[in-house]
Amino acid sequence: MPLEHCRIIELPKIHDPHGNLTFIESDNQIPFAIQRVYHVYDVPGGAERGGHAHKNLHQFIVAMSGSFDITLDDGKDKKKFHLARSYYGLYICPMIWREIDNFSSGSVLMCLASEKYDETDYFRRYDEFMRARWAA
Amino acid sequence: MPLEHCRIIELPKIHDPHGNLTFIESDNQIPFAIQRVYHVYDVPGGAERGGHAHKNLHQFIVAMSGSFDITLDDGKDKKKFHLARSYYGLYICPMIWREIDNFSSGSVLMCLASEKYDETDYFRRYDEFMRARWAA
Repeated sequence: MPLEHCRIIELPKIHDPHGNLTFIESDNQIPFAIQRVYHVYDVPGGAERGGHAHKNLHQFIVAMSGSFDITLDDGKDKKKFHLARSYYGLYICPMIWREIDNFSSGSVLMCLASEKYDETDYFRRYDEFMRARWAA
Repeated sequence: MPLEHCRIIELPKIHDPHGNLTFIESDNQIPFAIQRVYHVYDVPGGAERGGHAHKNLHQFIVAMSGSFDITLDDGKDKKKFHLARSYYGLYICPMIWREIDNFSSGSVLMCLASEKYDETDYFRRYDEFMRARWAA
C-alpha cells in the first residue's frame, strides 16, 4: 500500500484536573480491530530500533511518554513523523518499511496491532521487502 | 465477582539493549478480547482519581510510566495493589469498586478494556454499587 494511507490520527482528549484521558476503540478511532498491544520502554536516549515491514499487519503507534521519530518508506517514497504527545498516533498500513529513532530518555512507545504475533508476517531485510514490493 | 478473581499478571519481557518490549494479546496474556484502550496522563503527583465500578467490563491496568496504587473493593473485602513497572498489570473483573491514588509525577496509566465505552455499565456511586452487589 502506498505511503498516503499512513497518517497521523488525532485522538479524543478528555480534560480532567486529576489527569487527562485519551481512548482508542477497535474499528472506531483506528481502522482495525485490536488483537495485540505492545510497548517499548527502557529505551536509551537517542537509540534507534531496527527497521522492518509487515505483509498484512496494521499498526497504530503512540508516544505514551517522551518522543521519537518514525520514518516510513513504501519502497518509493519516504516520510518522517515526530511523535511527542499521547493524544495522537501514527497509523501504519501493511507493506511499509519503518525505522524508529531519536528516542528521548524515558520515552515509552505503545503499538496497537491488528493481529497476534506471527513471525512469517515480517520482512526483516530491506532487500526482501523491496523485492516483494515491486513484484506485484 | 469476588476479589480473588482480580490479580497481578506478569507479562512477557523481551530484553533488548535498544529498549525492552512487553506485549499483551487478546485472550492470551489476559482473559478477554481487547475492544478499547485508554490512557491517563498529565496526572499531578499525588493525585487521586474518583472511584467507580463496572457491571460487566473486564479491565487490565498497567503503569506505563511512573507508579500508582489501586485499591479494589468487592463490597466485602478490600485489597491495595502498587503498580510500578510496565511488565506486569492488574486484572480487574466486573463488579469491583476501584480507587486509584498516589500517582507519581509524570506517571501514565494504560487500561485495556473488554468492551467499548458504555455509560450504562458504570456504577458512579458507591451506595448504588453496594445495593447491586448485595441484591443477588
